[in-house]
Amino acid sequence: MGPLGILGGGQLGRMTLQAASALGLDVVIAERFPDSPAARLTSQSIVFETGWDDAAALDRLAKLAPVVTLENEFVDWRVLQALEERGVRVLPSPSCVGVVQDKLLQKQALARAELPVPMFCEVADPAGLIGAAQELGWPLMLKARRDGYDGRGNVLVHDASEVEAAFAKLGWPGRELFAEAFVDFERELASLVVRGTDGQVAQYPVVETIQDPNLHICREVLAPADLPDDVAQNAAAIARGAVEAVGGVGAFGAELFLLPDRQVCINELAPRPHNSAHYTIEACWSSQFDNHVRAVFGLPLGDASLRAPAAAMVNLLGTRSGPLANEDLAAALAEPHAYVHLYGKAANRPGRKMGHVTALGASPAEALARARAAAARIHI
Amino acid sequence: MGPLGILGGGQLGRMTLQAASALGLDVVIAERFPDSPAARLTSQSIVFETGWDDAAALDRLAKLAPVVTLENEFVDWRVLQALEERGVRVLPSPSCVGVVQDKLLQKQALARAELPVPMFCEVADPAGLIGAAQELGWPLMLKARRDGYDGRGNVLVHDASEVEAAFAKLGWPGRELFAEAFVDFERELASLVVRGTDGQVAQYPVVETIQDPNLHICREVLAPADLPDDVAQNAAAIARGAVEAVGGVGAFGAELFLLPDRQVCINELAPRPHNSAHYTIEACWSSQFDNHVRAVFGLPLGDASLRAPAAAMVNLLGTRSGPLANEDLAAALAEPHAYVHLYGKAANRPGRKMGHVTALGASPAEALARARAAAARIHI
Repeated sequence: MGPLGILGGGQLGRMTLQAASALGLDVVIAERFPDSPAARLTSQSIVFETGWDDAAALDRLAKLAPVVTLENEFVDWRVLQALEERGVRVLPSPSCVGVVQDKLLQKQALARAELPVPMFCEVADPAGLIGAAQELGWPLMLKARRDGYDGRGNVLVHDASEVEAAFAKLGWPGRELFAEAFVDFERELASLVVRGTDGQVAQYPVVETIQDPNLHICREVLAPADLPDDVAQNAAAIARGAVEAVGGVGAFGAELFLLPDRQVCINELAPRPHNSAHYTIEACWSSQFDNHVRAVFGLPLGDASLRAPAAAMVNLLGTRSGPLANEDLAAALAEPHAYVHLYGKAANRPGRKMGHVTALGASPAEALARARAAAARIHI
Repeated sequence: MGPLGILGGGQLGRMTLQAASALGLDVVIAERFPDSPAARLTSQSIVFETGWDDAAALDRLAKLAPVVTLENEFVDWRVLQALEERGVRVLPSPSCVGVVQDKLLQKQALARAELPVPMFCEVADPAGLIGAAQELGWPLMLKARRDGYDGRGNVLVHDASEVEAAFAKLGWPGRELFAEAFVDFERELASLVVRGTDGQVAQYPVVETIQDPNLHICREVLAPADLPDDVAQNAAAIARGAVEAVGGVGAFGAELFLLPDRQVCINELAPRPHNSAHYTIEACWSSQFDNHVRAVFGLPLGDASLRAPAAAMVNLLGTRSGPLANEDLAAALAEPHAYVHLYGKAANRPGRKMGHVTALGASPAEALARARAAAARIHI
């Protein structure tokens, strides 16, 4: 099998590359700058000097890699299309990514598939939002249709007096926005779904994700989530249905809300391996990265179930600048059955995902205590 | 922590690199030719154009990598010394490797430590061997002191009439030889020992290794070996004692013989990660590669015990030339809980180690059946 091309050189590309390399595959990393975390793990990388639409770089990638996937969901779907036009097999498909990366189109696709989503509507301008509030109620979420992540691109609007400022904050009129009913969820859940070109699915357990309230970044993941069976099954079915609704192939992270009445609704999809499933590297029979690679090459998917009773993951978020102290890594590795992953990023900065720690245990609480103990020793 | 340099670009270097990369480490691969399996997994590699003693290449490696280890035990210890002279921390140490890579010196060191080794003696010429046979008995093994592996470099000599031909076959007088009593062992065992710079040890279970009788290459590994506790403990103690006897730091494979009377003797050490412990990637809490990296960086070692009841590994040996068929890989991956590893070697040839399959199970026999089933589908 020919080399796998990956658009994006961050940690998701790096971990996908690691999984591909176990199967003997060469990987070509495409990124807009040199020396990305993933590019440092291959002898074949391409720098997109002028941005993702760099035609000469696309030509080179198409020559090297017959199959291309992405780890960065912000690569515009038209770039994927340009690769397809050069004869490359791109998975997930440009049309699927085009729907997913526009959160309004994504929501519309999920709603059409009769999946539970918060009420939403398109808004053209501030007056439109005030009109929409009659249906959605206050407070509501104003969101950018594209390029939002980790809470960026969202503003909670409490009443009409905040509307103008919210539009300005999100960059309107330079960016298209939409509005969504505010969901007063109880917990956030996630499930990683890998879908093959033939429709086969490997689905990982429903997990609980805990966000940092200030940074709006995932801090911790508990696997499995502590849920009644019927709730977990419903959440899993919604996640799987969502990936099918957009015709996804490869790994998709589905972010879900658990409501106070035990109902579940879907927040959004990410068309790539997902932070909420990093724990699968050690905790499941086949990791999300392994199954992502298998899916894009049309290989049979591996078992996505847990091979340990429980797991927990803690993200290592940058808190400062400067390199990691060796003593910190040594102290973290002294914690038994805790797995420290560092992404090899050249520079840290507050809130940046620099690595993660996964721990296994007899229960999610035990695993979390171990993962926290190890992570707390790393000052990065 | 600065980049790790690895002398050798084969599968052992590739898998060491994979483990190092999980800890965020950059790796520099040094090999005598470009595009080795390990070099393809890093943006930093150095080609030793004129052989391992290429002074310019040694200079470059010393500049890039403050810590260097080896995956190829045939890199002469004087090359390691030349790196030390350039300020590099080399582990295992040049003096240790110097002893291990000369099988006569190695045997002498093990015997001095009162570890059970087959009787052996230095022989200068054919007449010397005939004299030695009075003590060692016929048949006996005539062995090259250096550069032998997988049965190459050894000849079984049945009687005096075969002596001249045996010396010629091993390249004497161009190579130094020694003689060893023939050991009519019952089974072959192995144990991987990782030793830290501070003497801490992580020791993997004693396994049974099954060699191909024609190719003299390891075909299968069963973990743990089916042994009475006292025999397994004795084997483990001998393996550990052997690594301590040569002052080893990092991963060492110890190959052992189980004798018909349940005694164990040590055959030889390899000063590097070892084929008999590839199963540790999936079957143990920390793999041999992870612990090798930790040892050379002075980090605490991880738990070397099994996290599954049993495991088995089957080597994928080349049987022909030409690339692997996608359908073969697909068929192998369809076997549940079997892990296919391919090394990305540019060319296969009969007997070449192209990859391996590890499977887990409730017993070594169950794991072996799975690993064999998956491996049998790959025609490489």
